[in-house]
Amino acid sequence: MAKTTLKKIGVMTSGGDSPGMNTAIRAVARACAYYQIKCVGIKMGYEGLIHNQMSELGARSVKHIINRGGTFLQTARSEEFRTKEGRAKAFENLKKNELDALIIIGGDGSFTGGNVFFKEFGIPFIGVPGTIDNDIFGTDFTIGYDTALNTVIEAIDRIRDSATSHNRVFFVEVMGRDAGFIALNSGIASGAQDILIPEKKDSLDDLFGSLQHSQQSNKNSSIIVVAEGEELGNVYDLAKATEMRFPDYDVRVTVLGHIQRGGNPSCMDRVLASRLGVAAVEGLLDGKSDVMAGIRSNKIVFTPIAEAIKKHNEIDKELIKVAKILAI
Amino acid sequence: MAKTTLKKIGVMTSGGDSPGMNTAIRAVARACAYYQIKCVGIKMGYEGLIHNQMSELGARSVKHIINRGGTFLQTARSEEFRTKEGRAKAFENLKKNELDALIIIGGDGSFTGGNVFFKEFGIPFIGVPGTIDNDIFGTDFTIGYDTALNTVIEAIDRIRDSATSHNRVFFVEVMGRDAGFIALNSGIASGAQDILIPEKKDSLDDLFGSLQHSQQSNKNSSIIVVAEGEELGNVYDLAKATEMRFPDYDVRVTVLGHIQRGGNPSCMDRVLASRLGVAAVEGLLDGKSDVMAGIRSNKIVFTPIAEAIKKHNEIDKELIKVAKILAI
Amino acid sequence: MAKTTLKKIGVMTSGGDSPGMNTAIRAVARACAYYQIKCVGIKMGYEGLIHNQMSELGARSVKHIINRGGTFLQTARSEEFRTKEGRAKAFENLKKNELDALIIIGGDGSFTGGNVFFKEFGIPFIGVPGTIDNDIFGTDFTIGYDTALNTVIEAIDRIRDSATSHNRVFFVEVMGRDAGFIALNSGIASGAQDILIPEKKDSLDDLFGSLQHSQQSNKNSSIIVVAEGEELGNVYDLAKATEMRFPDYDVRVTVLGHIQRGGNPSCMDRVLASRLGVAAVEGLLDGKSDVMAGIRSNKIVFTPIAEAIKKHNEIDKELIKVAKILAI
Amino acid sequence: MAKTTLKKIGVMTSGGDSPGMNTAIRAVARACAYYQIKCVGIKMGYEGLIHNQMSELGARSVKHIINRGGTFLQTARSEEFRTKEGRAKAFENLKKNELDALIIIGGDGSFTGGNVFFKEFGIPFIGVPGTIDNDIFGTDFTIGYDTALNTVIEAIDRIRDSATSHNRVFFVEVMGRDAGFIALNSGIASGAQDILIPEKKDSLDDLFGSLQHSQQSNKNSSIIVVAEGEELGNVYDLAKATEMRFPDYDVRVTVLGHIQRGGNPSCMDRVLASRLGVAAVEGLLDGKSDVMAGIRSNKIVFTPIAEAIKKHNEIDKELIKVAKILAI
Repeated sequence: MAKTTLKKIGVMTSGGDSPGMNTAIRAVARACAYYQIKCVGIKMGYEGLIHNQMSELGARSVKHIINRGGTFLQTARSEEFRTKEGRAKAFENLKKNELDALIIIGGDGSFTGGNVFFKEFGIPFIGVPGTIDNDIFGTDFTIGYDTALNTVIEAIDRIRDSATSHNRVFFVEVMGRDAGFIALNSGIASGAQDILIPEKKDSLDDLFGSLQHSQQSNKNSSIIVVAEGEELGNVYDLAKATEMRFPDYDVRVTVLGHIQRGGNPSCMDRVLASRLGVAAVEGLLDGKSDVMAGIRSNKIVFTPIAEAIKKHNEIDKELIKVAKILAI
Repeated sequence: MAKTTLKKIGVMTSGGDSPGMNTAIRAVARACAYYQIKCVGIKMGYEGLIHNQMSELGARSVKHIINRGGTFLQTARSEEFRTKEGRAKAFENLKKNELDALIIIGGDGSFTGGNVFFKEFGIPFIGVPGTIDNDIFGTDFTIGYDTALNTVIEAIDRIRDSATSHNRVFFVEVMGRDAGFIALNSGIASGAQDILIPEKKDSLDDLFGSLQHSQQSNKNSSIIVVAEGEELGNVYDLAKATEMRFPDYDVRVTVLGHIQRGGNPSCMDRVLASRLGVAAVEGLLDGKSDVMAGIRSNKIVFTPIAEAIKKHNEIDKELIKVAKILAI
Repeated sequence: MAKTTLKKIGVMTSGGDSPGMNTAIRAVARACAYYQIKCVGIKMGYEGLIHNQMSELGARSVKHIINRGGTFLQTARSEEFRTKEGRAKAFENLKKNELDALIIIGGDGSFTGGNVFFKEFGIPFIGVPGTIDNDIFGTDFTIGYDTALNTVIEAIDRIRDSATSHNRVFFVEVMGRDAGFIALNSGIASGAQDILIPEKKDSLDDLFGSLQHSQQSNKNSSIIVVAEGEELGNVYDLAKATEMRFPDYDVRVTVLGHIQRGGNPSCMDRVLASRLGVAAVEGLLDGKSDVMAGIRSNKIVFTPIAEAIKKHNEIDKELIKVAKILAI
Repeated sequence: MAKTTLKKIGVMTSGGDSPGMNTAIRAVARACAYYQIKCVGIKMGYEGLIHNQMSELGARSVKHIINRGGTFLQTARSEEFRTKEGRAKAFENLKKNELDALIIIGGDGSFTGGNVFFKEFGIPFIGVPGTIDNDIFGTDFTIGYDTALNTVIEAIDRIRDSATSHNRVFFVEVMGRDAGFIALNSGIASGAQDILIPEKKDSLDDLFGSLQHSQQSNKNSSIIVVAEGEELGNVYDLAKATEMRFPDYDVRVTVLGHIQRGGNPSCMDRVLASRLGVAAVEGLLDGKSDVMAGIRSNKIVFTPIAEAIKKHNEIDKELIKVAKILAI
């Protein structure tokens, strides 16, 4: 425990934005106020560190942001921080502003940056998993994932209203980068006829079989949810192949896109972000560093950053089976 | 007034679906029950008339649909109804089922069909304007338009969360066919930097000027709302041109697509659909035919179908000016 | 036209808050910037005028508020402004800050204050109707009304989910002060069995008859929407009377309360607030004063404040009939 | 494993309704179809068993309910089932309909009934936890809890819009019976100034201290979230005490009420209900009985009903601390 040595913490959001990042920033700022250390908000991720864009965050300066999507500190991917010179500039600003430690809210790319920085300059930091993709090891949920799921199913509910009115087949692409968590869960939740994710071996034959089964079962519509990282093909290719195979089907495509990154965070995301933000501050105060604060089985856990970056959460086989059973 | 002669009315939804169609069907069925005439639901628009897919709708058979998007009667565009043979079949089924009149919920394509049918066979009908595009003369609002507007601005609010976190320029395509009502109103309501609609002469120079102004004003993001019928180019072309002109901008594209057609209807759409559904039944009972029931200055009005098809609602110049002023 | 004489305008929100007030403030500030006059935001309504709580509003200081419920200028009812001394203080501050005119966003109480102030000190002002109650003459819609309607029907949709699962009778109280606009429109839109509003003569006999009809029609639930100004009794009294009359009914009460005043404004409210905010600035520039900017038949109109305060919008008899027909 | 002996399963919802019950029924019916056993829906919980209100549920008879709040099988509390005679009648109907086992979706009261029934007649059954209160041992989450949390925070977000516009103190009562899970989590997620729950020793002094701190910190509003089971007093009493202590505060009360039980289920609730519905069918097929299907650390687990009824989930002390830290 090294409480006395920490006087000022910097917090930033980095990489892709996700709903709940604001809530996490608020939690960091308030926890700092509670433990009577100073908090500084760094704009635009590592870019702001390099270009010295910071300002102090008191308890009141984070009011009314708990329920706002996005990140008021803004975020960026920084090319410059990948260079030694960039990181040296960042370190200089850090010293100039007397920052003793960093809290980095972002995904594994952002954590990698923090990891390198820590190794080079020994700046203590703790990562907080903020991404809609839920693809980070060391936490059951990432901040923004639950909100994105709800955004996706509301969108698919709307699409189904229209699809059902017309007996249509809809291919819906959802986000998730290389991971199928959003696709699998939103697919189950929206009653998808089939769900295509990179973690599962898919084939056109299986897809066509599922569509034929749907038709024979007199379903009014078929929604196929496709992860953006799916290897069988993107939604346009899949739709084209389907139209060729079943010329009488009325096939449509929707790419949900960036609506999935925004919106007011869900209750679960706000609670998660609040807990992880507080935990990150307390972790630093306890002398932890180069770790990520996460939640597992509803308990706060700290995972070494190297492990968080390297390992991956596995898709639950049970969920794949459930999806199959319910599409009968 | 010819109340005694009408005993049985058929109701259908035709063309593109829109939120509130179910509410309108419910209003027709309930008004029929109230005035003690029979109501028959025809499936899949004119297709169902041709293929005799109908079933009686009592007051209770439309329960719990007032707030459901889409149309439980489903809808279709019928090629066969465009042929004389198709319409003859439809007429036969109409006689067989003893339908005295029709209520057709849809857009101008659907009304044109009803108009031809009326001229050939003298079947009384009243049109009810159901489309998200708001492009029908004789009514200030079409059923589904208000819901679509709210869906669009919620989506753009989400996109802005993300855009602002990254200093991005977003081109967002919204529906509306040849009309810019959705784009203009949702653009104003979501604080768009620029709005491109077919009713207004747009140019790349104006667009680029607007984007430059945005940059110089230190705005965190710029949303450009583009009607699908915009003549300057589609969102992909516009994005590409923008990237070429401003290579350092981070430009993104979202096509909102079919989420705009679904969702629980808004209060305004439910009230509108309820009023027009009742008015259509009362209009038929009063001996009206070949007209559309609409709402103007908050009063029910009936417009000859020929006029409703031919004329167009004008975009309000005041709104274009308001959009420009607010983008300062 | 007196464009040259106006250099600085004050804007305030006064009375009860409503969704879209922020949007209207934004429109005022941006329109001022567009027409190159200064804009000052006055906090807490007339209170802020009396206690000199003001700050300049540039085009950028109103960013990101277009979609936020409430009013960032805050609002209050001012006892002090009702006194001559209070108004004299307000006038002094007005002069000190060199304000040439006022834009007052609020309801008829707020307009009355402006009217008296104008008569006493000749300060030009224009009122903008902001209230969820829709009870202001001179405009078809007030800012916040449409949003409140959507909030109410979403709440009643939820209540119905539960009511239907249990065969329950629900009395739901909605806002609207002395006016039944919210109750009547939300009642129609949520499929209410009965709607009790002050503008209509209601009786327990009619209510009980409606409930019995519902029971006999095998409806799964009955929602009774009651305006807060209803004269027959409040929801608790009505529920008690119903329980006494029908001891076997499962009767529940919900008072929706202040959730109706908040929330992101709907598209319609944002467009309305944008138009009226711009119109108020242009009206002042054109030399108008002591008037309210409103919208009628979708056109901007200015109504003398005295008329706006004195007259009342009538409930549409057609809507009452539609409600009755649909409850069959 | 006793797959061959099970031919027909009955499913019911019992006790209070919660969002996601329909999703769970769907999952049971589809899993039965998948494993080629028959599924029968029992209306109104144990009442329907006693009065023989059942009908077969095929895979298609549960279409389009995955996203509907409430329960289409309806639910009730049955006095008659608490009597030996009532249960005997229920058993008779069960035999008459050749039901081999039951799946009971509900809370601990419903499980107690199933437990007694199993002991008396040996009818295999599995419980599925459906309640918004999250107060059932053996599962990390109950079906409907996550949806209720989101409903609550959306409502409080709206209330805050209004509270902040007026500098108000709001006491908001949320559901949860004897448990504070909804209050604690929604309180954290909505930035409550204080959260009063039965699991924590509260005092007026602490509450007043918190309110004074809020005032001194220049917060624009204070939301106090109160669990319905709070022992210090109900929201009306607390508001009155607060007004007496701080006569100049503008204190308001909202009881959120039954809106918390309805609404489209969230993604998490739909996935949970889907998994538990499938697990219950598979559990019965595996010969399990007198157990509840739940989810712990994201894995399906079966807990003896006696244990599920008797034990209680504990409130997490860490969450209480987080709430306190963030209210600084």
